[in-house]
Amino acid sequence: MTFTERLEDHASRVERHLDEWLSTDKLGAVPDRLLDAMRYGTLGGGKRFRPFLVIESAALFGVPVEKALNAGSALECIHCYSLVHDDLPAMDNDDLRRGRPTVHKAFDDATAILAGDTLLTVAFEIIAHESTHPNPAVRAALGLELARASGGAGMAGGQMLDLMAPGKTLGEADIRTLQAMKTGALITYGCVAGGILGEASKAELAALKTYGDALGAAFQLADDLLDAEGDASVVGKATGKDQEAGKGTLVSLLGLEAAHAKLQNLKAEALGALAPFKGRDAMLVGAAEFVVARKF
Amino acid sequence: MTFTERLEDHASRVERHLDEWLSTDKLGAVPDRLLDAMRYGTLGGGKRFRPFLVIESAALFGVPVEKALNAGSALECIHCYSLVHDDLPAMDNDDLRRGRPTVHKAFDDATAILAGDTLLTVAFEIIAHESTHPNPAVRAALGLELARASGGAGMAGGQMLDLMAPGKTLGEADIRTLQAMKTGALITYGCVAGGILGEASKAELAALKTYGDALGAAFQLADDLLDAEGDASVVGKATGKDQEAGKGTLVSLLGLEAAHAKLQNLKAEALGALAPFKGRDAMLVGAAEFVVARKF
Repeated sequence: MTFTERLEDHASRVERHLDEWLSTDKLGAVPDRLLDAMRYGTLGGGKRFRPFLVIESAALFGVPVEKALNAGSALECIHCYSLVHDDLPAMDNDDLRRGRPTVHKAFDDATAILAGDTLLTVAFEIIAHESTHPNPAVRAALGLELARASGGAGMAGGQMLDLMAPGKTLGEADIRTLQAMKTGALITYGCVAGGILGEASKAELAALKTYGDALGAAFQLADDLLDAEGDASVVGKATGKDQEAGKGTLVSLLGLEAAHAKLQNLKAEALGALAPFKGRDAMLVGAAEFVVARKF
Repeated sequence: MTFTERLEDHASRVERHLDEWLSTDKLGAVPDRLLDAMRYGTLGGGKRFRPFLVIESAALFGVPVEKALNAGSALECIHCYSLVHDDLPAMDNDDLRRGRPTVHKAFDDATAILAGDTLLTVAFEIIAHESTHPNPAVRAALGLELARASGGAGMAGGQMLDLMAPGKTLGEADIRTLQAMKTGALITYGCVAGGILGEASKAELAALKTYGDALGAAFQLADDLLDAEGDASVVGKATGKDQEAGKGTLVSLLGLEAAHAKLQNLKAEALGALAPFKGRDAMLVGAAEFVVARKF
């Protein structure tokens, strides 16, 4: 199976798993409208790249796909909640996402706030559930790291920095910090969570963290390059948005050439970190190549 | 120590504990503005009644106060996040809480959304942290139940029902369900969490749940009675708000006399559930009396 086939295969499994979890069977008597909004904001597409990382990092330690779906789906719930809240009028004020109305447009602002809150909460319900891993120490560790990755020193903190960025002059270190928090933290978590599920050693977890950090930075840099260079008809979304918004990115700071070189360095760093997993790391190698080459 | 002295004593311990947790020492590099908003929305008062329930339920099983502060503080973070989001213009649109500007007024809407999200996330970070309980099975159980109590079939779901209520004719069962979710679930969690911390038996946990359910229903009914009968100068907030908002409450449905009788029944039910803890339940008895008599 090629990398892309595997990515699609996992994505459809994650989709089905989220579809099962986001139901009254699993969650109890959630009001219809709230559940509809949560499902609208979560189901129906997406590459499910973060769950892919959980599944493939766990696979390094012999964990079968179905045993990694809970942790992967919990991470995807966090990612989706962040998009629902980020799209709100008080935040980025976006009316469209993936070509259809955002949650607050399809429902209303209050419902979108509550749907985001509930998706965030569901993530921790899934993680703590016995079906995530038989060892409660694993479930507690997954929950602790997920909270750290998505909290004030992670994703939510990164969104705060992003909100405060317009009009400020950010240096390279500031931009790296912002991106490592806003985008990188959940990508790193995906890699580390797989190791936690597989009860990896400290050294192995550290290697996965190094891989995830480099991958996350590459992910964001590739995105910035696409925004600066991409053809909107190929990328499938408006390009040049960062410049228009006055957002400092590494691309605007370093220039295109240096940014491309940096991207290759990050890829090399990510691949280097996989050394302890030689021979069974094809999909994580593929993920690094995919991120660097992404044309979506 | 009287009940009120104990309530105040625990409240100041919880305040100090939250003050410690809501810091970069504990949470890492949270951006200043975000941390300020989280602290503003959490610190500086409140009866801390939910943490009190955690502490006193845990005390039934010999758990010292300091060992219950994490679980109690996590619950308080959930309660505070819900207030921050509930006050937003898209939700209840309140400018004042406890006599000072709400978080979105003191900061801005986007910061309030992120501060609420982060407080919600911090709750699960605290719960999963080793210092909450040495047994990871206890931490995982606390996290699972907290997610259920605060999620779509709990508090957040109750807020959704509340949002959809105006203009609808709710029957007694509908109102009970709404209140049990919106207000009751976190109160019940407080009681059950103490039992989980104390590694209580299933029968003991069931008794705490029965107590908590009755206490939560009494809490809301007493609130509704205050709103209908209370003197604003005594209550310290506007009264008659429910009627003005066209909100159906059990008081408007049953009438004052029947509502008072119902309140006494709920108190009796709560006290009855404490039978297994006879001789060491003075503070939980006090809590039931406090809730029924409350004049705040």
